[in-house]
This record gives sequence, structure tokens and C-alpha cells, in this order.
Amino acid sequence: MSCIFCQIADGKLPGDILYQDEEVLVFPDIQPQAPLHLLIIPKKHISALSRITREDKPLVGHMINTAQEMARREGVSEKGYRLVINCGQQGGQLVPHLHLHLLGGRQLSDQLG
Amino acid sequence: MSCIFCQIADGKLPGDILYQDEEVLVFPDIQPQAPLHLLIIPKKHISALSRITREDKPLVGHMINTAQEMARREGVSEKGYRLVINCGQQGGQLVPHLHLHLLGGRQLSDQLG
Repeated sequence: MSCIFCQIADGKLPGDILYQDEEVLVFPDIQPQAPLHLLIIPKKHISALSRITREDKPLVGHMINTAQEMARREGVSEKGYRLVINCGQQGGQLVPHLHLHLLGGRQLSDQLG
Repeated sequence: MSCIFCQIADGKLPGDILYQDEEVLVFPDIQPQAPLHLLIIPKKHISALSRITREDKPLVGHMINTAQEMARREGVSEKGYRLVINCGQQGGQLVPHLHLHLLGGRQLSDQLG
């Protein structure tokens, strides 16, 4: 098993787990781009958004809902935040395990990449 | 009615509608940041992601699915693309009607804003 996010999900790599349930896991990005920069991942290995199957589609909705809940918990829900999913090379996806970025805690640029 | 996205959804403002169904509408961003820059919006007025109700949660999943389908249609699914939802002022949300950005067609920066 070489996927670092799977290793975090399995407890084989240390991670500051902020939330988890049966389906998803939340931990800070190790190279944060904002005061709040969390990753929401499925525990199941899915390499990219473009690879999800029909049966996994509700999982993406659950990832978004989890991000909103984390934004509330972390106190950025009212001031504002950004959710990003990078898919594939040109999308800037660096780890080949589906993940949703939650960024907040500062004024984010209008530039989306 | 002053919401420009509601006016596009109602056909009261011109828009190059690339896809629509009962729930969502897709059209190009008028200030594109990439060769492909589409907006996926709900037809129903929801001011921001943080304002969705429990009953609207499946709608966000449908917006994501629609974005993936548009990425396929537009030929960026394999090379890669980015999905972004800005929520509120610090998130960089400019139009107060929930919208999902789909960007592709060039190498996107690792900077998420």
C-alpha cells in the first residue's frame, strides 16, 4: 500500500485527525495555503473525482456536507471559505486519492488557479 | 428580482446555456480564468453554500455530477480540471447565488487562492 492518504486513514501514518466517520476523514493540509486548510477525504481509495462510480456519488455529497460542518466548527462559515477539488494533472491534483480542500481564515484571492 | 443568475435561469438575461435540466444550469463564466471556465448553478435561488437546507443537499451532489459530465463533454476529464465553490466574502464569492466553477484546458496553478 503506497497511497499516503490510505495510510493516514488506516492509522499507519500519523495525522492530526479532526473528524472521522465511517466514510470520511478530515485532517490539516501539511502545506497550508491559508490559516485554515483542511482536507476531507473518503476512507475508501478512489484515485480521482473522475474515477468515482455511480454508487460512490453520494460520497462526494457527504464530503461537501462534512466540509460545511468543519467550516462551522472552525468558525469560518460566516466570513467565508473556499472548497476545491483538483482532478488530474492539469487540475493540480498532487496526491492520487480523491480529496476536497477547505480553505479559510483570510481573504482568498479571486484567482482560482 | 435583482439576482443576475436567477435572471439567466429565467431567460431574462442572455446566456450561452450549455446544459440544463430541471435543477441546474451551465453557462460560461463571463470573466474566464482558463480556456474552459464554466459555472454550474442551481435554478433555485440559494444565496451561498452555507445557506443550503437539509432538503437541498442532494442538489450539491447533482451540481458536482453535472460538472464531471461537462468536463467529459468538453474533453478535459483525462488531462484534468478543478472544481471550486466560493462561499461568502472571504471565500471570494462575487455573485450571491450558489455556483460551482469548473476550470480546465490549461495547467492550473498549485495556488488555490
